[in-house]
Amino acid sequence: MKVLILGGAGMLGRKLAERLARDGRIGSNEVSSLTLYDVVEPQKPAGAKFPVATLTGDLPADGETDKLVASRPDVIFHLAAIVSGEAEQDFDKGYRINLQGTMNLLDSIRRAYADAQKKPRLVFTSSIAVFGAPFPERIPDEFFTTPLTSYGTQKAIGELLLADYTRKGLLDGVGIRLPTICVRPGKPNKAASGFFSNIIREPLAGHEAVLPVSEDVMHWHASPRAAVGFLLHAASIDGARLGNRRNLSMPGLAVTVGEQIEALRKVAGEKVVARIRREPDPFVQGIVAGWPRNFETRRSIELGFVAERSFEDIIRVHLDDELGGRIA
Amino acid sequence: MKVLILGGAGMLGRKLAERLARDGRIGSNEVSSLTLYDVVEPQKPAGAKFPVATLTGDLPADGETDKLVASRPDVIFHLAAIVSGEAEQDFDKGYRINLQGTMNLLDSIRRAYADAQKKPRLVFTSSIAVFGAPFPERIPDEFFTTPLTSYGTQKAIGELLLADYTRKGLLDGVGIRLPTICVRPGKPNKAASGFFSNIIREPLAGHEAVLPVSEDVMHWHASPRAAVGFLLHAASIDGARLGNRRNLSMPGLAVTVGEQIEALRKVAGEKVVARIRREPDPFVQGIVAGWPRNFETRRSIELGFVAERSFEDIIRVHLDDELGGRIA
Repeated sequence: MKVLILGGAGMLGRKLAERLARDGRIGSNEVSSLTLYDVVEPQKPAGAKFPVATLTGDLPADGETDKLVASRPDVIFHLAAIVSGEAEQDFDKGYRINLQGTMNLLDSIRRAYADAQKKPRLVFTSSIAVFGAPFPERIPDEFFTTPLTSYGTQKAIGELLLADYTRKGLLDGVGIRLPTICVRPGKPNKAASGFFSNIIREPLAGHEAVLPVSEDVMHWHASPRAAVGFLLHAASIDGARLGNRRNLSMPGLAVTVGEQIEALRKVAGEKVVARIRREPDPFVQGIVAGWPRNFETRRSIELGFVAERSFEDIIRVHLDDELGGRIA
Repeated sequence: MKVLILGGAGMLGRKLAERLARDGRIGSNEVSSLTLYDVVEPQKPAGAKFPVATLTGDLPADGETDKLVASRPDVIFHLAAIVSGEAEQDFDKGYRINLQGTMNLLDSIRRAYADAQKKPRLVFTSSIAVFGAPFPERIPDEFFTTPLTSYGTQKAIGELLLADYTRKGLLDGVGIRLPTICVRPGKPNKAASGFFSNIIREPLAGHEAVLPVSEDVMHWHASPRAAVGFLLHAASIDGARLGNRRNLSMPGLAVTVGEQIEALRKVAGEKVVARIRREPDPFVQGIVAGWPRNFETRRSIELGFVAERSFEDIIRVHLDDELGGRIA
């Protein structure tokens, strides 16, 4: 099967490509080729036994999505988006990339596969940002989407379009709302949610990390490895099992910051935990207070999506996948 | 205050214009001018004490919405849409009018009022078609929107955009999900929901009406007069009372077809009821089975929106407003 990843240079796109190179298949179908697309040059995964092409471009530009789907990939992962903070600061850019880009993609697919017997599986990464406070302690599958960011709005609209195009038989979409990805590899960034990963990743690497909120803050996590698992399961699941409700909150793990730190202590010891410096930041605390913290994701669990069951497991995934098991 | 009605030639637009002409005000604000816009020439309401202009055009055409809001109306009623059946049959037309038209309008408002101290109140008519089966017996305010028509999808997207543009301070939007309007004046039409009105309107006018479903079918109704009341209340309500959740299911009345007929008997007698001919239609029954039938609209009731409390009242509104009280 031909696979296209939009957003192939991002953290998830890269990990997904590496996993495809390693597995050589999605479910029971062999990958015959992979195309990675992003605004910056994606990196080819090592060891792929199928041809890998990389492309760069501007997703919402005229004709761009037509070109991307002209070869009729069997599976399209649409991970391309600008992040929440940027979409909030630059209203036009957010709507252009995250909404117009997605709308163009859907219409290009509609045209390119008009006479195709089989429509492509389109896996769309949505976000828990489609939910906006106030919400119940655990957000159920049937809770309404009232985003409090433009990013969340753009994702919620993408979900609606994906479901309608699927219902009309124009494509075969599955939208998955990812938890916060933790432990996020790479450098600390300025995202308000960055500290959830920073306080684990940095101490494990021998560096100090700043904790801007109190230990009772609860949040919703899954590892990068689990997120790649969600994407692959979404790519191969029988669409009939989803019916018309094509968008799913993914399973995750709800833990408090205190529980994160306790897990780090168990896995890596007191010396590592001591590298966390508490520096309360009312601004970050205010933002985080409006975020979802726990979900009841019955549907995705029934449909076979699997997340970590303990935060120690999440830390061990990071140790295995990023640090070769070594703690500094 | 300057008022603009988009969709001013439709049934609701016309009734809203007539009411404005009669009242001369919205809440405590005097109407200083009224512009009616539609794809066909709207009718000017009789007796208005303020200037009324009528315009025709194609809402999503380039530059069209810029022209419409250039004079910076204080209140804009956006009722313009193609109906559910047509949007389902003509995918492109539905998305062009109902989605692109709305997106253009929002962006034109954003530009036209960029340096305005006060943003316009935009009243957007959404629909209970944003909900798709299966749903609970009574749909609560926080139930998710999983439309099963392109029309419902386009309305749900309009709601999300309205909320985001409002949150960003670009306009001051209120979206209202209207119940099925009953008794709908005019000729019987081919809409699958037409019979809910036909079985009341036609017998009252001395004509036979066909009932294609069984009497236990329940549905959600409000009169045209109540709907105009919703629009006016949405135009004048303090936005701060809504917070960030700008879209509301309107109150309505859940009755079975049997209860509709019983109310008709009480108001108009057996002779009129005898004009209803039962002719079961499995196709219509199938469509209707997927529709919402009852709602729990706590929020809109708390916010002061008022619907009828009995179906006899709904019939009497029709008698008063359309038939001068006369039963044939």
